[in-house]
Amino acid sequence: MSIVVGKDEMAAFLAEVFPQVDGMFTIERLENDLTVMRLHAHDRHLRPGGTVSGPAMFSLADVAAYVATMSRIGREALTVTTHCSIDFMRKPEAGRDVLAHARLLKLGRSLSVTDVLLFSDGSDKPVAHASLTYSIPPKG
Amino acid sequence: MSIVVGKDEMAAFLAEVFPQVDGMFTIERLENDLTVMRLHAHDRHLRPGGTVSGPAMFSLADVAAYVATMSRIGREALTVTTHCSIDFMRKPEAGRDVLAHARLLKLGRSLSVTDVLLFSDGSDKPVAHASLTYSIPPKG
Amino acid sequence: MSIVVGKDEMAAFLAEVFPQVDGMFTIERLENDLTVMRLHAHDRHLRPGGTVSGPAMFSLADVAAYVATMSRIGREALTVTTHCSIDFMRKPEAGRDVLAHARLLKLGRSLSVTDVLLFSDGSDKPVAHASLTYSIPPKG
Amino acid sequence: MSIVVGKDEMAAFLAEVFPQVDGMFTIERLENDLTVMRLHAHDRHLRPGGTVSGPAMFSLADVAAYVATMSRIGREALTVTTHCSIDFMRKPEAGRDVLAHARLLKLGRSLSVTDVLLFSDGSDKPVAHASLTYSIPPKG
Repeated sequence: MSIVVGKDEMAAFLAEVFPQVDGMFTIERLENDLTVMRLHAHDRHLRPGGTVSGPAMFSLADVAAYVATMSRIGREALTVTTHCSIDFMRKPEAGRDVLAHARLLKLGRSLSVTDVLLFSDGSDKPVAHASLTYSIPPKG
Repeated sequence: MSIVVGKDEMAAFLAEVFPQVDGMFTIERLENDLTVMRLHAHDRHLRPGGTVSGPAMFSLADVAAYVATMSRIGREALTVTTHCSIDFMRKPEAGRDVLAHARLLKLGRSLSVTDVLLFSDGSDKPVAHASLTYSIPPKG
Repeated sequence: MSIVVGKDEMAAFLAEVFPQVDGMFTIERLENDLTVMRLHAHDRHLRPGGTVSGPAMFSLADVAAYVATMSRIGREALTVTTHCSIDFMRKPEAGRDVLAHARLLKLGRSLSVTDVLLFSDGSDKPVAHASLTYSIPPKG
Repeated sequence: MSIVVGKDEMAAFLAEVFPQVDGMFTIERLENDLTVMRLHAHDRHLRPGGTVSGPAMFSLADVAAYVATMSRIGREALTVTTHCSIDFMRKPEAGRDVLAHARLLKLGRSLSVTDVLLFSDGSDKPVAHASLTYSIPPKG
């Protein structure tokens, strides 16, 4: 489960495949045991005032699990989210970025499972907790 | 579990509390046993080409469960999503609206549980299936 | 998604692969759009008094999704549960059997998704709601 | 979120409220940041051969979340599982005990959320990952 696509290459890949959210997320750390993604609270995709909505937290968890998975299997592969279970536990702090800490729990031939904890920047109490499954289609 | 806030009043309420997504969703039906919400595929919130993303489907399921719940308990109440489990099962058809069929399974004093099936408009094969829990704080 | 293994053959298959729960469950209906399974409240696997526990409801949902899936793909195949999300919504009625109503939402090449509602026998208010994913390994 | 009911008292409480599973589970550790529970693979509740089934893993995750919650709020309180999302990721090793590592992510006034990882004894690759919500009714 070691990383085959580094942080800069992964960032370029994200900007290419998800142009509509360009600038919304940054990869902060991409390590074997932990991926950290940042959601910029003042991005134009968010509601006025910088309050991070439930769908924005879902997006952050989803992209963090995507980066954790794709950085291992390489950008030529295709993957698609098949499941997400997310618990919203606390209200994010207004105007603060949200950080996702993603840990790949399983990388099998046909699916990956990633655990994601979300935090308001500067806090250690999680605002949300998610588990995401990506399906990895067989190579053609 | 009968409806105390009708379709037009509920639509006005949605536009007021979620101005940032105004025009993205329409309440199609609001009945005792079924709430139907439409996500407009060509809305500016979606990516170019009208492909409905995972986060947009999450948003649709979330707002449909919100409408199903709030239409029963009245707009003075406060609720917040505490959990969502969603299975993405098929790719939505490009350029087609997505419809959410929401059914309230439980309305207790402190939480509601809503089952939501999502369909591309004109198809009867679900593209996603979600279960959402809303927490209903006690009245002050 | 039509059924290729009928009710009696499926019951014999269940007794063979899950001998440890033999007598705990009965297949009531096995139709294209609905599978109904019964959990016998007075079975020895349950706690004294016939109260159906959370794990017993999980087992019932799991076996109902298994029957819904296997009856379509045939008993030579191998499948394994990869995910379950379950909401416990009401307390089952003491001493009453619990019925599972399972509907196959998706049957793909590599996975199935089944929606399951659980009811105390004689009631139309669901006690639990589950979504289960079975992984279907490729044939060798 | 510090512990108010210690390991021995909690074990006695479990034996009292869940007599039907007495001997199936042991509390290994009960600390502020981690609860560890053991499922005995050779217990009579399991299938012949000591293979730990999905429902047995569900039970283990559920009881671990219960212990993590009750040890903080005290045994006079009532709680009930309202949600479980569980991913089964690997086959448990035959004949090995399964250990649950439970971490309380949130303890609010009306609900707790617990993250649980399950491992075959001696392995550091998780066999399953669960998130459980317990509802805590208001004190009368």
